[in-house]
Amino acid sequence: MMRYLLIVLCCALYFEARAQKVENLNFTSASSFTLVGKSEETPNRYDRIDTNKYKGLPPRVAQLLTNAAGLAISFKTNSSVIAAKWCVSKSRALPNMMPTAQKGVDLYIKNGDQWQFAGIGRVSGVCNDEILISHMDKGEKECLLYLPLYDVVDKVEIGIEKQASISSNEDPFKKRVLIYGSSIVQGTGASRPGMAYPARLSRASGINFINLGLSGSAKMEPEVANMVAAIDADAYILDCVPNTNPKLVTERTANLINTIRNKHSSAPIIVLQSLVRETGYWDKQLGAQVKQQNLNVQTEVLYLLQKGMKNLYFITSENMIGNDHEGTIDGTHPNDLGYDRMLKHIQPQIIDILNKHGIK
Amino acid sequence: MMRYLLIVLCCALYFEARAQKVENLNFTSASSFTLVGKSEETPNRYDRIDTNKYKGLPPRVAQLLTNAAGLAISFKTNSSVIAAKWCVSKSRALPNMMPTAQKGVDLYIKNGDQWQFAGIGRVSGVCNDEILISHMDKGEKECLLYLPLYDVVDKVEIGIEKQASISSNEDPFKKRVLIYGSSIVQGTGASRPGMAYPARLSRASGINFINLGLSGSAKMEPEVANMVAAIDADAYILDCVPNTNPKLVTERTANLINTIRNKHSSAPIIVLQSLVRETGYWDKQLGAQVKQQNLNVQTEVLYLLQKGMKNLYFITSENMIGNDHEGTIDGTHPNDLGYDRMLKHIQPQIIDILNKHGIK
Repeated sequence: MMRYLLIVLCCALYFEARAQKVENLNFTSASSFTLVGKSEETPNRYDRIDTNKYKGLPPRVAQLLTNAAGLAISFKTNSSVIAAKWCVSKSRALPNMMPTAQKGVDLYIKNGDQWQFAGIGRVSGVCNDEILISHMDKGEKECLLYLPLYDVVDKVEIGIEKQASISSNEDPFKKRVLIYGSSIVQGTGASRPGMAYPARLSRASGINFINLGLSGSAKMEPEVANMVAAIDADAYILDCVPNTNPKLVTERTANLINTIRNKHSSAPIIVLQSLVRETGYWDKQLGAQVKQQNLNVQTEVLYLLQKGMKNLYFITSENMIGNDHEGTIDGTHPNDLGYDRMLKHIQPQIIDILNKHGIK
Repeated sequence: MMRYLLIVLCCALYFEARAQKVENLNFTSASSFTLVGKSEETPNRYDRIDTNKYKGLPPRVAQLLTNAAGLAISFKTNSSVIAAKWCVSKSRALPNMMPTAQKGVDLYIKNGDQWQFAGIGRVSGVCNDEILISHMDKGEKECLLYLPLYDVVDKVEIGIEKQASISSNEDPFKKRVLIYGSSIVQGTGASRPGMAYPARLSRASGINFINLGLSGSAKMEPEVANMVAAIDADAYILDCVPNTNPKLVTERTANLINTIRNKHSSAPIIVLQSLVRETGYWDKQLGAQVKQQNLNVQTEVLYLLQKGMKNLYFITSENMIGNDHEGTIDGTHPNDLGYDRMLKHIQPQIIDILNKHGIK
């Protein structure tokens, strides 16, 4: 009996302490703060694309473009506590996503010249409020709050101590490099929004990599190719082999590249092979299919290069996520270990190409 | 209209194909197959400990010991398809766990002398059936099916093709090394059951590391110390700094070590410092607390060593999960990247100590 009373008392004290803490904060809407990682202006602030502008997009593509993948709010504050309120949809928890990556938020703070992880906001329902980090020094801090990778987002507010100040900060990243691709771009398997690979590339390089990952739906449809080409960027990375099949790769790769090239006569276009699926080592059918997709995309790029297309680059995927077979959550999507290995493989090559074109 | 008809038709075909596939398999109960990673026999096969044997265990500890963390079924088959059926509880999805790690299953197959990831079984409800891998070669395969890290498990069955054979296989791991610790041992942040660090240590070394991780509850209570000491093992690893506080570390560490030593006069006892929490770099209060816990555990181990205790070892945690601050899911629990770095740090030291004592 005594034990139960104690548990009830502890719970009451905990919730009291927590409520007091959030109550003691001032919340400011993030609606006027700089939004990092946007492709273009949208009627709904936290959509990635204004899909009404583009005709004939597949419904699933249009829906995925309302997910806030890659978007982050840039602000500065001298508060020693940072909290967030945000709302997501009622969509169900995905079986292959960490809940924080799907619907949570992820705070980074600048430490010297490096962006450093500071805290997450866990998701508990449609509308959430969470203290992300407490007991910090009171100095001015530059912050990036990454939004959910796999959900629509609304009503984002930042909470700070009552006596502290908060204001919008500039976009810390320069230029614009669009990454069109699959769930591996959108961030399935990453443990939190800031761990999606385009976000990691931006923090590591200072270049603005824009996440146009479309989970399961990066199929290079002509209408999507038109949309990608219509987005103004300094370079284009195409990581869209995984969601297709060998025939589609052959049918659609050259059209996608040519469509971009027609609108952007000299922008670097970098095509990535797909990582070899770990399940493909055992599933001979799947293994052969991914191998063929990778061969076919290489054939397409080689053909365009031989025809004389300039500023077109190809990055192969051998051993991209290591050779111990532990780099995925499910045989297909990298875990944070696999993404780290993938970045060690692609990042130096991508940065080298971009720098050569003055993108830095 | 036509599009909707097509979608309905595709869905029907998909479920038909899937149902046919699972229906075409023969399922065998795993109840008589070798169970790897057990501390001791238990009335409920997939519990870790028979908690009725030990007096005074905290209720949360007793409950966590019914989670199947670290358990795996050892079998061999020549089937080219492997499926699984398993039941878990109705407990809610945890906000900081990948659903597959919490409630799913994870298949490894021996490739030469290496255990290699083959496929996962995603969780979709209380009772689940999933094809883990298909289209394999038909040769005899040694398999390990890891069970959920954070749930009770019941009614595990393995599915194979009707014309194929299946049988129990021996425990591939030798000796027994018990790891008592927190959620970091149990596997929070790992993307699937086989990625918990004790499981990775076993596959890498061939030594049987037993997961006695107790999420949030590794507090070295005297009753739990008695239980740990009562389990017969060749060595004991204590990774239980994170769930305590500086005072508890000082009060309880020596008692835990002495209790084990009294029952096991010469077994190596290896004490690990806690990883420094990434949030602790910003949260000065938390950072100072973990630092103090780590200092206090070091003081306790040094004291026992100076008093002459033999076969007691200490592994420090500096830079254990790297220095880019990207190795956790939430500032506390490693992601697969953090676990990989942690293993690079602790594995050579642990294996070296064990080998010196003939444990290999």
